[in-house]
Amino acid sequence: MNEGSEAKEELRRGLEGVLAAETRIGYVNGSDGKLFYRGYEINSLVEQSNYEEVSYLLLYGHLPKRGEYEEYVKRLREEMPLPDEVLSLIKNIGGRTHPMSALRTVISYLSVLDSMESDSSTKNQERIGISLIARMPSIVGAIHRVYSGKEIIKPDPELGYASNFFYMSTGARPDPVESKIMDTALIIHADHGMNASTFSALVTISTMADMYSAITSAIGTLKGPLHGGANERALKMIQSVGRPENAEKVLKVMTDKGERVMGFGHRVYKVYDPRAKILKRYAEYFAERKGNETFKTAQIIEELMINKYGERGIFPNVDFYSGMIYDAMGFRTEIFTPIFATGRISGWVARALEYSTENRLFRPKALYVGEKGPRKYIPIQDRD
Amino acid sequence: MNEGSEAKEELRRGLEGVLAAETRIGYVNGSDGKLFYRGYEINSLVEQSNYEEVSYLLLYGHLPKRGEYEEYVKRLREEMPLPDEVLSLIKNIGGRTHPMSALRTVISYLSVLDSMESDSSTKNQERIGISLIARMPSIVGAIHRVYSGKEIIKPDPELGYASNFFYMSTGARPDPVESKIMDTALIIHADHGMNASTFSALVTISTMADMYSAITSAIGTLKGPLHGGANERALKMIQSVGRPENAEKVLKVMTDKGERVMGFGHRVYKVYDPRAKILKRYAEYFAERKGNETFKTAQIIEELMINKYGERGIFPNVDFYSGMIYDAMGFRTEIFTPIFATGRISGWVARALEYSTENRLFRPKALYVGEKGPRKYIPIQDRD
Repeated sequence: MNEGSEAKEELRRGLEGVLAAETRIGYVNGSDGKLFYRGYEINSLVEQSNYEEVSYLLLYGHLPKRGEYEEYVKRLREEMPLPDEVLSLIKNIGGRTHPMSALRTVISYLSVLDSMESDSSTKNQERIGISLIARMPSIVGAIHRVYSGKEIIKPDPELGYASNFFYMSTGARPDPVESKIMDTALIIHADHGMNASTFSALVTISTMADMYSAITSAIGTLKGPLHGGANERALKMIQSVGRPENAEKVLKVMTDKGERVMGFGHRVYKVYDPRAKILKRYAEYFAERKGNETFKTAQIIEELMINKYGERGIFPNVDFYSGMIYDAMGFRTEIFTPIFATGRISGWVARALEYSTENRLFRPKALYVGEKGPRKYIPIQDRD
Repeated sequence: MNEGSEAKEELRRGLEGVLAAETRIGYVNGSDGKLFYRGYEINSLVEQSNYEEVSYLLLYGHLPKRGEYEEYVKRLREEMPLPDEVLSLIKNIGGRTHPMSALRTVISYLSVLDSMESDSSTKNQERIGISLIARMPSIVGAIHRVYSGKEIIKPDPELGYASNFFYMSTGARPDPVESKIMDTALIIHADHGMNASTFSALVTISTMADMYSAITSAIGTLKGPLHGGANERALKMIQSVGRPENAEKVLKVMTDKGERVMGFGHRVYKVYDPRAKILKRYAEYFAERKGNETFKTAQIIEELMINKYGERGIFPNVDFYSGMIYDAMGFRTEIFTPIFATGRISGWVARALEYSTENRLFRPKALYVGEKGPRKYIPIQDRD
């Protein structure tokens, strides 16, 4: 068996359309604009559940009974405070690097403090996974604080997962609406098919590497602007439009030039992104109740874009709204992708665990298109 | 387009046989037992080249002219010393974690010191890649020293890449044979098709993430025992056999029980692994010149195994010899996989750069086999 010798095999660039694994965790119905976690539509989860419960659901496949829920939440709460050594690392990294690089490094470093890190039994991988889910809000919150030149805030055991994340990030306890928005943002980002970061976690864990390695890979992969970071650019686009009355003119210039309008269109969704639909409600809250002008501008942009491109299946995606909302709640733009990661951590862990229970090492092939050889080695003095 | 809706697509478990990318970098001819880098057979490179030159070859596709070679070596030499902050991190991690976890964390941390880390231009990714190639021996050497409770040693500008690695790891300047063995070990591990760690680097960089992220992923992926670590287990097997005269009896017990004999057989090579053939010479050196008993035992094991299984295409692989040789040269077993990484860094960087110049985001699909739904949300008090 040689690399690339099977001429009958077709090159699958980007593995587009290739079924790389089975899953029972999540399902994206792009034609109807629906997203399911373990068979539950996200709308019902956003309305009736919370992030802790959704996280449990993704991991275990069923909604927890009261005892299971209490035990899970207790475990998250116990794991949430960060060891001093990790706080020192975050302070030491400071604002010198992209927050995603800080996050990647901190997650990798956590293995130093775990004497069981390399035990690849499912039980142990699950234990690490849950501790990473618990610690993400504290880590991202602390990175946000240090990045903004502010003091790190310890978790408040009275607050839930999303509220604690808000509190540790912004320094203020959220009001009920902010708390609901934060929880919603985390839920709707918790899982989304076989995206590149999730796939990256699977590739890493498929060698029976530990969960720290898998999540470290996922974070590094999410860092790339083709994956994370779209909401940051969508917000910048909206801000560059500025006042609502500029929208029509600016959009015309952009579309005439063939520039991509960030925050619109999606690879899978050809109708309205169900996550964007959920966030849109909160955008209206900020626009109407708070008089936030960015949201008013966004509404106009959305109308203009749907009128022009809706027939072709181009609608606002989740990134169009999430950035604006994070910004309005006091998050820096550099922290938007780490917020994404804080939601997605449950999906990463759940899918990595699922994959490792019926593990198969990932080993695709490359099609060799280089010099056939054997080339003759020529000593350095004779090269020209 | 829905996830997993195309029933006509076949599930490709582990992506086995799927052509995931094109490459001009390396080619494995498993049926003839040959390994090529850019069209050059590794035997000719091991005999006539050195790691620095091979690294350049993998990156740029041609053997360097004298000026190019000197410039490249100068760049490696300048980048080789580690900043104090990195040395402190390595000391602080100490022996608390698996050296691969330490390595993964240190590589990730290097981005903190690089204000250009997120610039995803090819030029910048290449710059980062070369600096990582330069720093691997210093990092792995320092980790080895600290892990062994010894002082970190700074690189000696008079020594080449492989000799410096040996020196910084063991504390002694290598004799000419040791220097040649070290160089050979790094060359033969520099690239090997689309293995899981290389693939992992490609998945990460395909989102336009930075080279630090890509190499961090690769290291985490190599850490898994299904990828790295085989030579450690092969050495343990040989040591468990003990004296040469035990070999026949112990092997019979193992094969009767159906236990896998580590260090034999290879997914791709169905003849003698060309890398094992190269290392075998040095094993003879250690056995005959140094009277090392492990090597004598290994020779007997090899004979017995080939007599029994050679016809079925089972021969010693590179891991059978590499562990023994590293052990004989004074490396701890826990550092074997980081040595592998030190060789492979050039292949990782070269292939990640190659991929990113004709980039395509990796986005396979998962086949959804879970509950169809929509499931009805039941409040917690009503669950049973």
